[in-house]
Formats: sequence, C-alpha cells, structure tokens
Amino acid sequence: MASLPSDDLTGLTALSLLPINWVGRIAERLRAGDAPATVFEALTRERWPAEPERARAVSVRAAQALDRAAAGGISPVGWHDPAYPPALAAIADPPPVLWVRGDVASLTSDPMVAIVGARAASPYGLAVAGQLAADLAARGLVVVSGLARGADSAAHRGTLAAGGITVAVLGSGVDVVYPPEHAPLARDIAERGAIVSEFAPGTPPNPAFFPQRNRIISGLARAVVVIEAGEKSGSLITARAALEQGRDVLAVPGNVLTGRNRGAHALLRDGAKIVESADDILEELGETRPRPVAGCRPGTAAADPVLAALTAGEPCDLDAIAEKTGLQSARLLPRLFELEVRGLVRRAGGGRFVRIDRPC
Amino acid sequence: MASLPSDDLTGLTALSLLPINWVGRIAERLRAGDAPATVFEALTRERWPAEPERARAVSVRAAQALDRAAAGGISPVGWHDPAYPPALAAIADPPPVLWVRGDVASLTSDPMVAIVGARAASPYGLAVAGQLAADLAARGLVVVSGLARGADSAAHRGTLAAGGITVAVLGSGVDVVYPPEHAPLARDIAERGAIVSEFAPGTPPNPAFFPQRNRIISGLARAVVVIEAGEKSGSLITARAALEQGRDVLAVPGNVLTGRNRGAHALLRDGAKIVESADDILEELGETRPRPVAGCRPGTAAADPVLAALTAGEPCDLDAIAEKTGLQSARLLPRLFELEVRGLVRRAGGGRFVRIDRPC
Repeated sequence: MASLPSDDLTGLTALSLLPINWVGRIAERLRAGDAPATVFEALTRERWPAEPERARAVSVRAAQALDRAAAGGISPVGWHDPAYPPALAAIADPPPVLWVRGDVASLTSDPMVAIVGARAASPYGLAVAGQLAADLAARGLVVVSGLARGADSAAHRGTLAAGGITVAVLGSGVDVVYPPEHAPLARDIAERGAIVSEFAPGTPPNPAFFPQRNRIISGLARAVVVIEAGEKSGSLITARAALEQGRDVLAVPGNVLTGRNRGAHALLRDGAKIVESADDILEELGETRPRPVAGCRPGTAAADPVLAALTAGEPCDLDAIAEKTGLQSARLLPRLFELEVRGLVRRAGGGRFVRIDRPC
Repeated sequence: MASLPSDDLTGLTALSLLPINWVGRIAERLRAGDAPATVFEALTRERWPAEPERARAVSVRAAQALDRAAAGGISPVGWHDPAYPPALAAIADPPPVLWVRGDVASLTSDPMVAIVGARAASPYGLAVAGQLAADLAARGLVVVSGLARGADSAAHRGTLAAGGITVAVLGSGVDVVYPPEHAPLARDIAERGAIVSEFAPGTPPNPAFFPQRNRIISGLARAVVVIEAGEKSGSLITARAALEQGRDVLAVPGNVLTGRNRGAHALLRDGAKIVESADDILEELGETRPRPVAGCRPGTAAADPVLAALTAGEPCDLDAIAEKTGLQSARLLPRLFELEVRGLVRRAGGGRFVRIDRPC
C-alpha cells in the first residue's frame, strides 16, 4: 500500500492523528518494537476493517501536517527521536509525536515542575503562581504549564521575568495560540523555551482536547503544583494524571471561605505535599539548589524603575515609592500589581510593598 | 500542724498554689490515692525542708482564696469533685483546682472543641474562627478558647451568636479579665458557659502564665483547631500540649505569602487534619450531628435588621442591603464586618454579602 507511511516520523505522525483513545494501544505496540507504519497498518485494519480509505486519508493528513510544520518552523519530535522528553516517553499514553515551537532542547531538562491552577485565579493565586515559578526559575528549573488565562500564564510570566525557561503545552496546534491574547506571551516562551502540543499544526482549540492535554503537562514534569483549584477544576485532572504517572503532586493552600481552594485542599487531604515556597518543591524533588547570587541577564527585572526604587526586605509605602520613581499612585498601583503577579514584589501589610530578592 | 489544710478542697487549693513545676508530681500522688493534705505536707517538707513557714503561708493563702471565691460567686472545682471535667483530669498535669465563673456543668460537655489562633488575626482569621465556632455551636458542641484578642474572642463571639455555650480559660484569676476590654464578653460567656482558671481568684495576668494555661484549653477539649498561627504563635504551644495529651490537632490553611499561616501549615505538614468547615472537625471526632433546623432562641441573630434583610444563599450587594435596611454604606460596612466576624454573614465576591444559614 503505497499510501501508507514509509518512514518512522511519517508513521508516528499518522499514528498521532488516529482517535485519542487508541493512544495506549499504540504505545504498547511501539514499546513492543513494532515499526510505526506496521502499527498504523495493523490498528487501522483491525478497527476500520471496511474503510481502507480512512487510513489512507489519515496518511495524507500526516504528510500535510509535516509539510505545514516544516513551512512554519515547527519541529516534529517523534517518539523514536532522542530529543523526545524521556519523562513523557515513560507515561502509559505518550503522544506519538510532539510538535514543538521553540527550543526542543528545553524539553529534556530535568527535573521540570508543572504549575497549574485556576483560569479565574484571584490576585493571590496569580501572585503565588508567579512567585513560585520565578523562584524555581532562579534555581535553574524549567516550569511547565498550559498557557491558560490565570494561574498558568502567571507561572509562565514569572519564569520569564526571572530569566528562566518555560514550556507551554497547548490544547491546539502550536501555531494556533489560545487564548488569542496570549500570542505575545507564547512568542516570549518560544524564544527561550518551547510551545508544545500533540495536536498537529493548524488544529483549532477544542474543549475536549484540554483534559487529554493535561496528561502531557504532568507527563513532562516530575512534580505538579496545584494553585487555587476549585472543586471541579481542570487542574485536578492534571493532578490525577500526575498520580497515575507516579509524579509528585503538591498543592498551595489558601482561603477556606471562598471555595476557590477546595480542590487544592482536597489534594492536601489526600496526601499532596503542602507548598508555601519553592523550597518545599525542591525538597520534595530531593533537589538542593542554592539560589544563584550573581549573573544578571540584560533587560530583566533590575532595569525596572519601580523595582529599582525598592530594596529587598525593606517594605516601602506608596508615597515613598511615588517620590522615588516620580510616578503617581494611579500609575504605580497597576505597575506594582503586575510586579506582584510576576513574583517580584509582595505586599507587606499596611499598604506597603517589598521587593523580593532575586539574582537579577 | 493545725495550719495545714484540713479538708480535700482546702488541701487541693493549697496544692494549686505550689510552684507550677510541681504539678505533675502532685497529680501522681493524688492518682496514687494520697489525700491532698498528705500530699501537701509530704511535698512541702521534701522541697522546702528548712522553711516550714512557707508551707503555712501557702495554707493561709488557700483559705483566703476560698473565701474570696465564695464572696465573688466563684466555684472552686477540686480534682476530687465529680464536676471536675473528666477530659482534663486525664492529662499528665491537671490543675488541682479549677476556679469557675458561670455554669460548672458546661465543663463536662463532651466532646468540646478548642479554637485558638493569632491575637493579631486578620479579617480572614477572625471570620473563620467565628464561623467554625458558630457552626460547631449550632450542632450543640461547646467551644473552648482563651479569651484573647483576635481569633480567641472571635470563636467565643461566634459561639454566643449561634446561641451556643463556650468556655474561656484564663491566664489570670477568673475575676481578673484580661484583656480588660473583654470584660463584657466574659460576662456573656459566664451567663451560659464558663470562665475557668487554675489561678486563684485575684491573680493578675502574667505572660508566664499563658503557656501553662494553654494545656488546660487543649486538656478540656477532644480536638484543637489552630487558625492563623505564625511561626512562634502561642497556639502552637496549645497544639503541642494537645498532641502530648492525645487530642486531635487540626489546622485551618490560609495565605502562604503573608507568613501568618506558617505555624498552621507546619502543623498540616506534620499530619494535622485540614479544616475547611465544621464538618471536617466533626468527622475527625467521629461525630455525626446534623444541623438543627428549628428552635430559635429569642433575642439572637434573627432579630438583627441587617441579617433580616439578607436571605441565606442569595448574595446581595451593598446598595441593595442599604435600600432594604435604610442604613447608609458607612454604617452598614462595620455592621457587616461584625456579622462576618460572628460567622453570620460571609463575603460572596463582587462586593456582595450572603447570610449564612443557621437555625436562628
């Protein structure tokens, strides 16, 4: 059958376009040593016996996906590829192909930590996500998340602000950023880290894709940190996947009156480790990485005039910051909020702000 | 020696006036069946061999304490008294006498739950303390705390607001209320519950007394709930005492960025059960007590015009409450805050408030 895939990458790409519920069976056959084309032929013949044209159509779409990737600067990383992340290869249902925008090498960093949480995160959830991510990044860890609104994007931004590397796993093709307003963030992520997806380039986002996407977030990481997960949060799907994959699950506690943290607290009740700071995560991973104390990257946080006006460990009130920066309160407050979200500043009580000490 | 105590209560009172670090030895001897006067004579002779006048002076003070109690309507409950709380009698170092203002019978209610926390509690800590206490009270449980500023007094007030019974354990004589501004609260507590202390009537508060007082808070209770304990909070002393006494220790999680919850989170890390609601406490105690659905006490919460303007489960914004009550925002906000602290109202997001469903 000339129309069936003829090399491993085309074969894996074709396998990746088969129904998602076949993925466990596909992994089994690949692990048994069968060539991708053989697995593709066997499975499609077994499950679509009366429809050989369906298999051929998938094969054509595979070739098209690879063409589209090549044209768009997207790297297809097949299951057989040495660049395929070993942690992800070890899960029960690894995607046959990972499409990557950005630096493929960032996917084999170890350990990676996933930070996931509520899309409608509170200022508290955003601040914690940003701060944990920045602190992990400052110790050289790669942070994985889902590019979603809320906690996910705060984690990505916190990592970038600390000069770190972050990986975003999408529920669409890597060239179809959702939500659309995160396109600039996605570009920043791809510059130093990577945007990845199991969905072929051009695949539009689909609510049904996100739960299965979550197993890749946890699959890439050694630990998953959950922030502000409500009772039915998608983050709990990621946490469940992490447990099935034998990854550590950690959760950040919070307010018990708002209902925002019911899912995270349920995880704590079930034995998830409590996270107050990045140290708790490193301890759980058995990592001892001192904070770097020097080596600023140009263009990072230190260049910020508001940050420059603050001294780590010395809370400063709004008037004093206004005086030092020459900015009025109305402009300062959103700026301080942004810095808080990025984990660079925190509120110190009494309306004061304090800079968080980082290498840069 | 005619000046030595001649009856059990006088003997126990004399024992209670000996140095606090003797209390374990005193309990041992009493448990072995020795009469209080015998224990007093033996111990003072052993430890103050050259100073018989010290023992006699203590004996005189014991008689004075009993006189002062009788004059002030304070009930001395000796270790031998059937009214002495059995849970407290079981600890390693029970006070020989418990001085009680109010209803002695409230001390033998079982199970009692202690709620303790930061003196400088945040609005969150106050709201949680008040709400948990009110919810426990609504199920008929007696709530124990320390009458301190902050979380303690919120727990007492929450209990009273729900028509429940609460017990305050002082670090001074029961007729010397500290902090002084809690005198009216102490009166309310004594009306339905009890103010208790191991310190004789008239004893002024002393910082050194509070840590030892804490063992009585936990000793009266089957479970201790810690709210907003910082790293060096006195509540952690109560939690440690509870663990030594074999009581359940539970903790309420909260914000990880403020440092206010480090102690509570450390307890969770060490295996304390996480508390989001009164149900978690009841479950830990193995109690299944449905909320009463009827039976209002006159003069309680339902008579409040602000509460009357709210319907349980239906968040209402400030303007709507102002319209219904005829009160202006400036007067409404402190009123709502007070109701929140008492656990009768909670914030529902978007500046709205919702009444918490209670029997009254």
